[in-house]
Amino acid sequence: MTDSRPSGTRRVTLSQVAERAGVSRSAVSFVMNGRTDQRLSADVFERVRRAAEELGYRPNQTAKTLRTGRSGTIALVSDFVSSTSYANAMVRGAMRALRERDILLFTVDTEGDPQVEERLLHSLFGRDIDGVIYTSMFTRIVDPPPLLASTRTVLLNCRARGGDDVAVVPDEVEAGREAARLLVAAGHTDGIWFVGDLPPGRRGGLLWNEWGPLALPERLEGIERELASSGLSLAGHAAVEDDWDAPNGQRAVERLLEDGARPSALICVNDAVAAGAYRALHAAEWRIPDDVSVIGFDGSPLAGMLEPSLTSISLPHEDLGRRAATLLLSDDATPRVERVRMPVHLGASVGSPTR
Amino acid sequence: MTDSRPSGTRRVTLSQVAERAGVSRSAVSFVMNGRTDQRLSADVFERVRRAAEELGYRPNQTAKTLRTGRSGTIALVSDFVSSTSYANAMVRGAMRALRERDILLFTVDTEGDPQVEERLLHSLFGRDIDGVIYTSMFTRIVDPPPLLASTRTVLLNCRARGGDDVAVVPDEVEAGREAARLLVAAGHTDGIWFVGDLPPGRRGGLLWNEWGPLALPERLEGIERELASSGLSLAGHAAVEDDWDAPNGQRAVERLLEDGARPSALICVNDAVAAGAYRALHAAEWRIPDDVSVIGFDGSPLAGMLEPSLTSISLPHEDLGRRAATLLLSDDATPRVERVRMPVHLGASVGSPTR
Repeated sequence: MTDSRPSGTRRVTLSQVAERAGVSRSAVSFVMNGRTDQRLSADVFERVRRAAEELGYRPNQTAKTLRTGRSGTIALVSDFVSSTSYANAMVRGAMRALRERDILLFTVDTEGDPQVEERLLHSLFGRDIDGVIYTSMFTRIVDPPPLLASTRTVLLNCRARGGDDVAVVPDEVEAGREAARLLVAAGHTDGIWFVGDLPPGRRGGLLWNEWGPLALPERLEGIERELASSGLSLAGHAAVEDDWDAPNGQRAVERLLEDGARPSALICVNDAVAAGAYRALHAAEWRIPDDVSVIGFDGSPLAGMLEPSLTSISLPHEDLGRRAATLLLSDDATPRVERVRMPVHLGASVGSPTR
Repeated sequence: MTDSRPSGTRRVTLSQVAERAGVSRSAVSFVMNGRTDQRLSADVFERVRRAAEELGYRPNQTAKTLRTGRSGTIALVSDFVSSTSYANAMVRGAMRALRERDILLFTVDTEGDPQVEERLLHSLFGRDIDGVIYTSMFTRIVDPPPLLASTRTVLLNCRARGGDDVAVVPDEVEAGREAARLLVAAGHTDGIWFVGDLPPGRRGGLLWNEWGPLALPERLEGIERELASSGLSLAGHAAVEDDWDAPNGQRAVERLLEDGARPSALICVNDAVAAGAYRALHAAEWRIPDDVSVIGFDGSPLAGMLEPSLTSISLPHEDLGRRAATLLLSDDATPRVERVRMPVHLGASVGSPTR
C-alpha cells in the first residue's frame, strides 16, 4: 500500500465531533471513553455517537489505555488456528466468553514461524493488548516466546516445556480410556487393534512442521491402561506411512487385512484415519459394526457423515477456548494444567464381536 | 481482568534497552523502527534486538505509525470466518499475500452482530490499522458499515448493496455452467435434478441469520443457462427442509425417490447435501455413478472422503483471500467486482447414463 490514508481522510479531532454534536469537548471525551459517572443525558450520548460516526472519528485507543490501565482487548496468538479448518471452535469459545465481559478478541496466525510470531507480538503489544491466549492447532508441548513474559498469558491446547504457566488442554489420556471402555463394554477382548502409530523417525505430520501431537502418546496410554485394568491388551498396532489422513488410514488397514489380521475392533487415532479404515473395510467386504467395530477421535463433522456414523471421542474445542479466556480473566495465575473432558460422540460403528 | 499489567512488568523504556545493549538511544530507535538508512552494524542490530527481547521492550506502535503514515497491519473483519471451519483458507490466502510484503494480518469475527462490529472497528481504527478486508463466510450482499468509509477497504466473498466498492467473489454462475457442462458431456439429457432449493419463505440457514447466500441463485442460473444452450432443462428441483447439511440432503433425496422420480444425475447445492444424497441413494441401492451421477459444490475435504469420491466445483477460498489482499495493497481503488474462477475437483461420481 503506498499510503494508508487516502487524501481527505485525515484523523478527525475531538473538537470537530464536539462542534458537530453541539456539545463540549469534555462531553465527547466522556462518551468516547464510556464514562458513566458524569450524568450525561441519553440525548447528548446519542448526538455524540452519531456525530462521531458521521465524521468517522476514531478514539485514540492508546491514550485511553494509558488512563484506564486496560484496553478491553485480548489477542489469540496461534500457529494455524484461524487460517485452517480444524480447531476454529477454540476461537469461538474464547470470543464468546470474552464478549460476555465486553472484551474484544483479535486473532493472529504465525504459521509456526518464530520471526513472524515475534513481529506479531511486538505489533500487538505496541497496540495495548491486555493479555494473550497462546494456542496451537494440535495439542503439543511448546516453548512460549520470552516476549510473553511481559503480559498476562494462558496457554490453550498446549503446555509449556518448563511447566510454569496456566494451560488448558483436552484430557487425552481419559479419552483413550473412554474408547477402550466402550469396546470392553461391548464384549471385545482379544481383537482390538490401534491404527495410527507413526513410522520410526517420524514425530508428526510434515505439513505441521513435524510437531509431535500429544494426542498419539496420550490416547495410546489411556487405551492401554484401560485395557490392562480388565486384564486385556491391544492385539497390535497398524502404523500410517506419514500422516493422519484418510488415504494413510486406508493403506494402513489394507496392509493389516492383507497380513491376515482378523480384528474385532479398530481404534483409529483420529476421524480421518477412521474414514480411511472404512474405505479399506468396505473394499474388503467387512461390515461395520457387524464384522468389525471402529472408533475415532476428534468428533469432527466427518464422523456424522460416514456410513455408518462413526463413534468418536470429541475434542471439546469450544469449551477449551472458553475455559482459557475465563482463566485469563481470573485473578488466579497459579501455574497449572487444566484438563477438559473429551465427550463421547456416539455413532453406529460399535457393536458386539461376532467371532 | 482486574489489572492487565502484573506488578513488576511496567513498560520498558528505550533508554533501558540502550543501556543494556551498550549503544545510544538513537541506535535503539533506528533498529526498532526498521530504519536501514543509518548504517548500523550487524553487531549493534543484534545487541539491540537481544536486549529488547530480554527486557520485554515493546516499541510504541502509535508513535511509529504517526511518523511513517502506515502501521504495517491490515485487519480481516468477518462474520464467522475465523471462528468456524468453513472458509478459513481466505484468511490463509490474505495472510500469505500480506506477509510477502511484510504486512501483518489481524483477524476479528463479529458473529454478524452490528454492535460488536462497530466496537471492533473502533477498536481497530484506534490501533492504527492500514486497511480492512471485509468478508463473509458465505458469498452474499452486504451493507458495509459506514465507519469503513474512513479507511481503505476491499470486500471479500461479498458485494456491497450499493456496488461502489472493490469486491472479490467466486464466479458462481460459471461454476453452475461447469457442473451442467460435465453432465451434458457425459451424455445426460432429461434426468438432471437440482437438490437444494429452499422452502417458500426461507432465505438461508437459520444458524447464519438466514442471510441468503448468492450461491443458490447464481449456481442455479449457471446450470439453467448451460442446459438451455444445449436445448435441455432441469427435470426438476428437490428442496431441502431448512438448511444445506447432510440430513437435509438425505431427506430431500429420499422424498424424491419415494415420489417415483428416476434421476440420471443430481446436482447438489453443496458437498454436505451431496453427502446426504449419497446416504439416500445407498439406502435405496442406487449405485453411484452407475445408476445415477452426483455433483456437489465447495470442493471440501468431505468430497474426497465420500465413496465414491465426489466431483465438486470448488470454492477457491485461498485465491479469493490472496486476491483481496493484493487489491487492497494496489493503487487502483476503482469500484468493481472481480470474479474468481471455481475449479473442478474431479471425483468418481459422474458417469454416463445407463437408461
